[in-house]
Amino acid sequence: MTVTETFQFNNFLQNTKTLGGTTTFADNHVHLSFGYPYSALFPLKELAQAAFDETLAKPNALHYFGDDGTQLIRKWLVARLQQFSIQTKPANITITAGAAQAIEVLARTLVNPGDEIWVEDPSFFGAIRSFKLAGATVRPFPLQEDGIDVDALEKALITRTVNQQPLPKCLYIMPNYQNPTGITLSLEKRKRLAALASTYHFYILEDDAYAELNYNDETLPAIQSFNTEHVIHIGTFSKFIAPGIRLGWAIVPAHLQALIQQFLHGSQTNPYMQQIISKFLQTVNFDDYVGNLRTFYKQQRNFTAKLLHQTFGKAISLRAPDGGFFITFTFLDGTNTEKLAQVAEKLGVSVVDGTAFYLDGAHHNMLRLCFTYCSKDQIMLGITRLKEAYDTL
Amino acid sequence: MTVTETFQFNNFLQNTKTLGGTTTFADNHVHLSFGYPYSALFPLKELAQAAFDETLAKPNALHYFGDDGTQLIRKWLVARLQQFSIQTKPANITITAGAAQAIEVLARTLVNPGDEIWVEDPSFFGAIRSFKLAGATVRPFPLQEDGIDVDALEKALITRTVNQQPLPKCLYIMPNYQNPTGITLSLEKRKRLAALASTYHFYILEDDAYAELNYNDETLPAIQSFNTEHVIHIGTFSKFIAPGIRLGWAIVPAHLQALIQQFLHGSQTNPYMQQIISKFLQTVNFDDYVGNLRTFYKQQRNFTAKLLHQTFGKAISLRAPDGGFFITFTFLDGTNTEKLAQVAEKLGVSVVDGTAFYLDGAHHNMLRLCFTYCSKDQIMLGITRLKEAYDTL
Repeated sequence: MTVTETFQFNNFLQNTKTLGGTTTFADNHVHLSFGYPYSALFPLKELAQAAFDETLAKPNALHYFGDDGTQLIRKWLVARLQQFSIQTKPANITITAGAAQAIEVLARTLVNPGDEIWVEDPSFFGAIRSFKLAGATVRPFPLQEDGIDVDALEKALITRTVNQQPLPKCLYIMPNYQNPTGITLSLEKRKRLAALASTYHFYILEDDAYAELNYNDETLPAIQSFNTEHVIHIGTFSKFIAPGIRLGWAIVPAHLQALIQQFLHGSQTNPYMQQIISKFLQTVNFDDYVGNLRTFYKQQRNFTAKLLHQTFGKAISLRAPDGGFFITFTFLDGTNTEKLAQVAEKLGVSVVDGTAFYLDGAHHNMLRLCFTYCSKDQIMLGITRLKEAYDTL
Repeated sequence: MTVTETFQFNNFLQNTKTLGGTTTFADNHVHLSFGYPYSALFPLKELAQAAFDETLAKPNALHYFGDDGTQLIRKWLVARLQQFSIQTKPANITITAGAAQAIEVLARTLVNPGDEIWVEDPSFFGAIRSFKLAGATVRPFPLQEDGIDVDALEKALITRTVNQQPLPKCLYIMPNYQNPTGITLSLEKRKRLAALASTYHFYILEDDAYAELNYNDETLPAIQSFNTEHVIHIGTFSKFIAPGIRLGWAIVPAHLQALIQQFLHGSQTNPYMQQIISKFLQTVNFDDYVGNLRTFYKQQRNFTAKLLHQTFGKAISLRAPDGGFFITFTFLDGTNTEKLAQVAEKLGVSVVDGTAFYLDGAHHNMLRLCFTYCSKDQIMLGITRLKEAYDTL
């Protein structure tokens, strides 16, 4: 009798596979699966210099409580987020270990086992896992061309109210370049969702991880700008500085701040890293810097979309997203993408198929490709291998 | 009707005050409350150089998956922890954001609401808070001169078994220089606890945060060395490198690894910081380095203990600990230390009184002082102010 047979671990631990990274590390393997930035765009010299200077100049950054970086990084965000019509102050911003920790901490704060979190269908598997680990029941609502089906959502809220059944504790939304579909939520729907949250007393987790990486120079106001009491806006430095620094943020209504701090356990999120990044943000010309990223990634997007069209022709339906890291497309010929992804993995290219994003676990003929991590040559090789796998099936 | 009145947040959020840091920031305030290291001992130049070099040399450290630092840091630990008779391998070590995250993640993994975690009485308030947030019922067992009362513990386990009542899911133990008492668990009791865990199928969380900071050149084997299946050994770089880097570790039995990874959400703990610290550990002569820390902190301990004896004489009972950051003492004259700490705070010195450590919340005439953060001059000033507060009562 082993320990694991007799011991009841946390009831909400998942039996499903963990999608945390591909397990193939062969040198010539092509990774088109996850949302990684392009390595050569990391601001290495600037970060190295910032780390060197701040370590010597600000030893308090090495304490739990940190130095001025923990404040400066939030001041920078206050100014920067105005482009999304967000009006906030440093005290309302909590720095977290990436958007992932923000999502997890908010889920734990808002949910008791059995409570519902409503999401887009399909949605981001990492967030869904956090919700399930917090004991939430996750209910999906269909996505339309302009975002989540708000009519269906409102109808469900009304039904619950009429029947005196529990309302959802929160709605998880990716308003820009939704992961995986690339869909952007319309202005009208942003306003409607903000109003529904007030009427029905639920929170909205607005996960805007890719907000800075817009390729069409068009920016809609954040949902949070229409309702600061019920909307928690979440962002991350991972996509436009580097994931390895593990820094993100949440803009949280004042009445929630003390609650989420309990789950963040007293110490502020890596104060030393915040010091280094705050220095980088002070020294860099950010508009130029992020402009370079956008130009490069837009080329990558166009290149990948064109290549996919050339390779698969009318077998696929593809719409290039207005921003972000992913192109997601559907096979119109009924190809089982779950099997396709498995064969492709063996042929040397990783992609993520629809089963990871849909709560029903069905395959949905969908594939998601990241176009930002690999070079054009690698992408070409990857898509060639994907075609090989397709032809095999 | 505001949101907070109508919304049911997580049931396990605490109403008690959060002891995450003092709220007094006056320049001349003396902080003797929390376990902070001495700033001038931070290896600033070495860290600055390591950060600069590794940022340029290892750009993959800026990705989610990291570079070789995530492996090197665990290899270093495998070698270093042999001094505590720990025989392990890198695959069994999980790097966490400090010991605090390790404790939290283990509590979440092992516990369902209502399950019990047994602790020493008194115990560390940060760990107790994590256990309660995970929904655990926390039961204290008295401390004796040589550690937790194992007879009482065994009796309770037998009673539970006989009555077919649930056993605890885990026992939380600080074996060396226990926080707050400074007590070290005897060799005999380490062996007995390790055996009890096997017999009654519970886990032991062995929190050894101060293991490297021993002032008497005597090291006992870790509890983990007697039972690798049921004991999770937890440590941290916070106390001997710096808290601001937010790195700690847990040595976890193989059958638990995949479970705790779910709560760590796929990405490894700050890979960039791990890269920097792995470089520092490769370049420093660690025995010399940690030897310097021990010499300095031992002097601080002796200085503080002597001063307390001189100041309070027979009014207090004090035994200097064999390691760690704290001196804890008891007033024999019935002084209410909760009130004393409040008055002292106003007079310019922060200390932590017994209420924070005892589950019954009673004051217990106890005070804990950190002797490692402040200079001797500051400690002198702090103790003078504490005496002033004492005379006021």
